[in-house]
Amino acid sequence: GVTKKILVIPGDGIGQEVTAWGKKVLETIAANYKHTFTFDEGIMGHVAIEATGDPLPDSTLEKARQSDAILFGAIGHAKYDNDPTLKVRPEQGLLKIRKELGLYANLRPIKLFDDLLQASSIKPEILQGADILFFRELTGDVYFGEKNRSEDRNSASDLMIYHKYEVERIARKAYEAARTRRKKLCSVDKANVLEASRLWREVVQAIAKDYPDVETEHMFVDNAAMQLIKDPKRFDVVVTGNLFGDILTDEASQIAGSMGMLASASVGDSIGFYEPIHGSAHDIAGKGIANPLASVLSAALLLDISFGLKDESQRVIRAVDATLRQGYRTMDIANKHTPNEFVLGTDAMGAQVLKNLN
Amino acid sequence: GVTKKILVIPGDGIGQEVTAWGKKVLETIAANYKHTFTFDEGIMGHVAIEATGDPLPDSTLEKARQSDAILFGAIGHAKYDNDPTLKVRPEQGLLKIRKELGLYANLRPIKLFDDLLQASSIKPEILQGADILFFRELTGDVYFGEKNRSEDRNSASDLMIYHKYEVERIARKAYEAARTRRKKLCSVDKANVLEASRLWREVVQAIAKDYPDVETEHMFVDNAAMQLIKDPKRFDVVVTGNLFGDILTDEASQIAGSMGMLASASVGDSIGFYEPIHGSAHDIAGKGIANPLASVLSAALLLDISFGLKDESQRVIRAVDATLRQGYRTMDIANKHTPNEFVLGTDAMGAQVLKNLN
Ligand SMILES: CC(C)[C@H](C(=O)O)[C@@H](O)C(=O)O
Ligand SMILES: CC(C)[C@H](C(=O)O)[C@@H](O)C(=O)O
Repeated sequence: GVTKKILVIPGDGIGQEVTAWGKKVLETIAANYKHTFTFDEGIMGHVAIEATGDPLPDSTLEKARQSDAILFGAIGHAKYDNDPTLKVRPEQGLLKIRKELGLYANLRPIKLFDDLLQASSIKPEILQGADILFFRELTGDVYFGEKNRSEDRNSASDLMIYHKYEVERIARKAYEAARTRRKKLCSVDKANVLEASRLWREVVQAIAKDYPDVETEHMFVDNAAMQLIKDPKRFDVVVTGNLFGDILTDEASQIAGSMGMLASASVGDSIGFYEPIHGSAHDIAGKGIANPLASVLSAALLLDISFGLKDESQRVIRAVDATLRQGYRTMDIANKHTPNEFVLGTDAMGAQVLKNLN
Repeated sequence: GVTKKILVIPGDGIGQEVTAWGKKVLETIAANYKHTFTFDEGIMGHVAIEATGDPLPDSTLEKARQSDAILFGAIGHAKYDNDPTLKVRPEQGLLKIRKELGLYANLRPIKLFDDLLQASSIKPEILQGADILFFRELTGDVYFGEKNRSEDRNSASDLMIYHKYEVERIARKAYEAARTRRKKLCSVDKANVLEASRLWREVVQAIAKDYPDVETEHMFVDNAAMQLIKDPKRFDVVVTGNLFGDILTDEASQIAGSMGMLASASVGDSIGFYEPIHGSAHDIAGKGIANPLASVLSAALLLDISFGLKDESQRVIRAVDATLRQGYRTMDIANKHTPNEFVLGTDAMGAQVLKNLN
């Protein structure tokens, strides 16, 4: 067995409730496969601001650097959403850890579990067989460009900026992945309007030459937002910038039935960072009804990508599959038109997954 | 009857084919209702670059200023999409005319014609009753902020910037519209990350106080991209910036069955500008298969908004409705599972609409 250190950062809102189950899954896998996983816990986001005034305390960052992989929950709180003038904000913690750890590639696999075919707003015949892997650039773009507020406070700006090396490294990762899949890559930009997008497109065009076996397509982001719903099967690997990736992957969650099912892996320089793509959902936080499966599937990604434990990772995915097959659903993936569904809360759902792991 | 001057700018690609039908509809309405519409024609986009070197020749801009309303087609060409290094680009023409005419508010109504309920990828029960009016800000944001390419050409940037007055005027227009509808307004931004969005949210929060009868909601753009598909009925009026509006309205076209059905009105200082939300679609240009209904419905918006001719506008919409009810479809809105559909080309479809107008 392997010996690994995992940092768990539950974060805010439902992050607390769901990450507990991602962790339990890792513990169960360790026990079943005789690995030694040691866990530490860190704070980040609103909870960290409340405790220390800082959305990413140095102690959390230090623990992160010492770990082999990080399992994260969610970030954000209504208080800050309702008051845009607040200077210290939970999301700054997440952005900072992404930057500090060099997590420039955010992988978001979009795939529907068979038993959830009816859970989506999209017609089953449109969804069936859809399988998309997003590569969202995660440490550049308008997220990290200079921010400004004019002195009279009457105007505000953020710089959307890309450097060649940033586009190159994510594009290469995306092409490498496309090679192991259906050999299609769609690069999404807004090159008909934005200079940063024109640079993006130039770089991807140049790198495409190194991957003649992969079919490259360039698409404007507005068109991509439409095509994802119209014909999701046309996509294999999609590579795009930070902002467009944020929007398109949330949209694409509908292809997988619910946001509550989607996990993501952020990788780059060394340590991997795993998190659900859903947010802190403060409207349902504390009610015990959040879907823990995105955190469980984040744990599966962690086992695969950071630890190279493919069997263990597949085992987790099969346990989720089995749980859904048995008819267990959380509220977000329930479909009132389907008989034989049992709607469970967070903990009961997590417990079913554990049962199916044993 | 009224006397009005209309400038027609077919633009590029399928713009040429479909705008002919928007114009014919206006001519028919003029004849039937004894109005005097005089038409002039202008060039813009790739066709204008080919003819004059300039995507928006002064002569077109001059004609635009002299007109009472403008009917536009589409813009763009594969040549420029494939070569991001070209300096003169078709889209610059469209951006410039929007700016020069002060067209800061782009209205995009999203509503499904009953007979197209089956044409969408989205389940009928999710769509039925959805009715959204987008207000997309159109002369600010990262579209018009300063663009830069570093001297070594290794980085490129666009400034995402908003001024208070820009947010205020579009927010007021959106609130006024919400008052005449279901009294709900959703403002979309990314205030948890972007300074420009925080300004946006502050301004909308302040203006909301003047409209206590309208229910205001603030939503992050990633969440909005998801909710539009998950539950389109939750939206009434949506107000957002230029870039987010570009992406979300293309996505929302799937709620209306097809992009080929959606018209938009750009208004502001004085003259109104009407165009389909679809692009030049060079892949199908010249084949005679494009859907002319978005141009026809753009003409309907023109009659209503610029000329105040509500009956005439409704007459056009009823003619489109009747055409669909008779089973006529262009390729993009055909559904192979529905019997009694007749798939027509652009001109045959346009001719059916004219028949139903008489
Ligand atoms: C919480 C927020 C800063 C974050 C982002 O925009 O990156 C989230 O939406 C995500 O997608 O991980
Ligand atoms: C052609 C392009 C510049 C334009 C835009 O992005 O505004 C188009 O997509 C639109 O939505 O009108």
